[in-house]
Amino acid sequence: MIGNSHIPPEQRYGRGLENLVAGDTAIAEIDGTAGRLLYRGYPIEDLVGRVTFEEVTYLILFGELPTAPQLADWHNELIRWRQPPAAAIEALERVPASAHPLAQYRTMLTVAACHIPEPEKTDLDAQWRRPARILSWTAALAACAIRHLLGETPIEPRDDLGYAANFLWQTLGRLPERFEIEAFEASLVVQAEHGLHAAAFAALTVISTGADLGSAVLAGMGALSGARHGGANQLAFEMLAGLDGPEDARSWAREALAHGHRFPGFGHRVYKCPDPRVTALEPLAKRLLIDHGQEKLWHTFGALRDEVENALGARGIFANVDSISGLIYSPIGLPVSSFPIPFCLAIQTGWMAHCLEYLPNGKVIDPGAVYLTDEF
Amino acid sequence: MIGNSHIPPEQRYGRGLENLVAGDTAIAEIDGTAGRLLYRGYPIEDLVGRVTFEEVTYLILFGELPTAPQLADWHNELIRWRQPPAAAIEALERVPASAHPLAQYRTMLTVAACHIPEPEKTDLDAQWRRPARILSWTAALAACAIRHLLGETPIEPRDDLGYAANFLWQTLGRLPERFEIEAFEASLVVQAEHGLHAAAFAALTVISTGADLGSAVLAGMGALSGARHGGANQLAFEMLAGLDGPEDARSWAREALAHGHRFPGFGHRVYKCPDPRVTALEPLAKRLLIDHGQEKLWHTFGALRDEVENALGARGIFANVDSISGLIYSPIGLPVSSFPIPFCLAIQTGWMAHCLEYLPNGKVIDPGAVYLTDEF
Repeated sequence: MIGNSHIPPEQRYGRGLENLVAGDTAIAEIDGTAGRLLYRGYPIEDLVGRVTFEEVTYLILFGELPTAPQLADWHNELIRWRQPPAAAIEALERVPASAHPLAQYRTMLTVAACHIPEPEKTDLDAQWRRPARILSWTAALAACAIRHLLGETPIEPRDDLGYAANFLWQTLGRLPERFEIEAFEASLVVQAEHGLHAAAFAALTVISTGADLGSAVLAGMGALSGARHGGANQLAFEMLAGLDGPEDARSWAREALAHGHRFPGFGHRVYKCPDPRVTALEPLAKRLLIDHGQEKLWHTFGALRDEVENALGARGIFANVDSISGLIYSPIGLPVSSFPIPFCLAIQTGWMAHCLEYLPNGKVIDPGAVYLTDEF
Repeated sequence: MIGNSHIPPEQRYGRGLENLVAGDTAIAEIDGTAGRLLYRGYPIEDLVGRVTFEEVTYLILFGELPTAPQLADWHNELIRWRQPPAAAIEALERVPASAHPLAQYRTMLTVAACHIPEPEKTDLDAQWRRPARILSWTAALAACAIRHLLGETPIEPRDDLGYAANFLWQTLGRLPERFEIEAFEASLVVQAEHGLHAAAFAALTVISTGADLGSAVLAGMGALSGARHGGANQLAFEMLAGLDGPEDARSWAREALAHGHRFPGFGHRVYKCPDPRVTALEPLAKRLLIDHGQEKLWHTFGALRDEVENALGARGIFANVDSISGLIYSPIGLPVSSFPIPFCLAIQTGWMAHCLEYLPNGKVIDPGAVYLTDEF
């Protein structure tokens, strides 16, 4: 018989390590019962609309909101890396437009990472300097990847714009409206960190070996490209976009619920209550859709959400952030197939913070395995 | 006080997850007390010199040594993918020769992976077909990366050669001697799989999200590029090459031991006895060095090993595979800075096997974390 009955019960974990506490962290606290997400002790609802994505990245990476001089330094450092190595952008010409947008984006980052000077490689101080470079390079490369999808050429960055506004400028080729920037910035803020989920854990495993931060982020991007992880915002929006108004949404949802179907964008491993990121983004998505004459889509989303939450809320299934982020990305003009990219752009902040938190005393993450034999 | 005293003891794991059994596997058994390594039940010493690397990859990936018709099919499939997409090789022109060889190699693989047809993406059958493509593409790309290091241009593959011989042909630009092929093949065979070490676990975390096998292998390569993981064979050889004969090795080792220094290539997380991979490669390395007029280097290695093992063997520290693999790579003509690449080429077999073993019922690897607060 094949089995592992010789392993003490406390060392037996299910596939997926669901019940395993893999480490300590002081970066974010996720309360799945109360529906709260805190970055370094700050609830996200206290941050949205009050601080920029730059400030939140500083908070998540370095532990506190920056003072004015600290923010000025961080802003300058981020501006400094807005122009990735030309070779990274040129490499995109070698990639078919039909490839997964995250794969295109990752390809450019791996080329760019080859241009980081060699002497920095194993220097812990250098690891700490790198998040700014990665945050800014990836914004430029993400913009290039999205334009490549659309058959368009890259656009130069603008130093007079903040992170969110410059990303939209480089992606859309137009200066976005002020409220578009605010809404997009909020989507970056609420998605900047979410604990040791699979992509963060992949990044952490890579950094634990002494690899560079770019390699760790690349591993996170690989994990995020999985259909069961990073593509959910795209699937949720495509589902919604296929519905013709609130009535159609209600009847379609009832039918799907009767057949026990799953709904992309609903349900969450941790949150068994309304997702605080949805609550934070709701008024912004609503206003953005109304501003763009897409009020019907907002009501369609509301109807779908009502039906699903009424039927499944008692079982802890509510709309999650993937159900609503596309309602910010789409009216701004981001193509649906690119939706995993802005999510990645935001959440890589958390991956890097976990890497930097782990580095000072971290050991190589090197778990054991039970060898199955016929002897039991 | 910051702490995690509210976590039940059975859920507390040290950083590095050293005592955690992260999963079951039927691929390899590593006995660190007896010094045995078995692939699918076969001890490596029964495989070395008897089967090719192609046969071992089939054994590790699919569970049994191939029958003659199965081997013919597998060999043809491997030959079919010897020519990676031209774009991947062209992308290398965008990368400075000074970049880490594994980063160059990985860059080409990520470009190549963008050229895998999109419809295969989430198809489980396609995942199973991909190992052949990755094994063969990476051999060609590894050869290009090593030649790029040397300032040389790529060489076309030869379909009349086996995997090991063709890799050496494409890397060295000469048809290797028969014994060089045998020794190099043996190094691939004994390093083809080694359980759920950090790089394998990074790959497994990525594949668990539904990502493609290429993304998983890229994560493994990232982890392997860490100085604490994949670069040890290079460090061990550089240490040895700096010694002037057996007497110098003995006095240098005694001095270093007296200062409590660590020795790259000695000691292992699992093996507390002679590493079976060293035992298997010893006669091959010895003959290869003698054939190439480098008998002195062999005796230098022997003297160093004697000194270190006599001093530290009682504490379970013995020469590991990283101490000897370079004694096969170097006389064949591979440059020292490229040594992590052939190791990666071999061991990615194991990463892919773990991914394929995990896929059918695997859940997303998504562990929890303890949030540190001031409340305890």
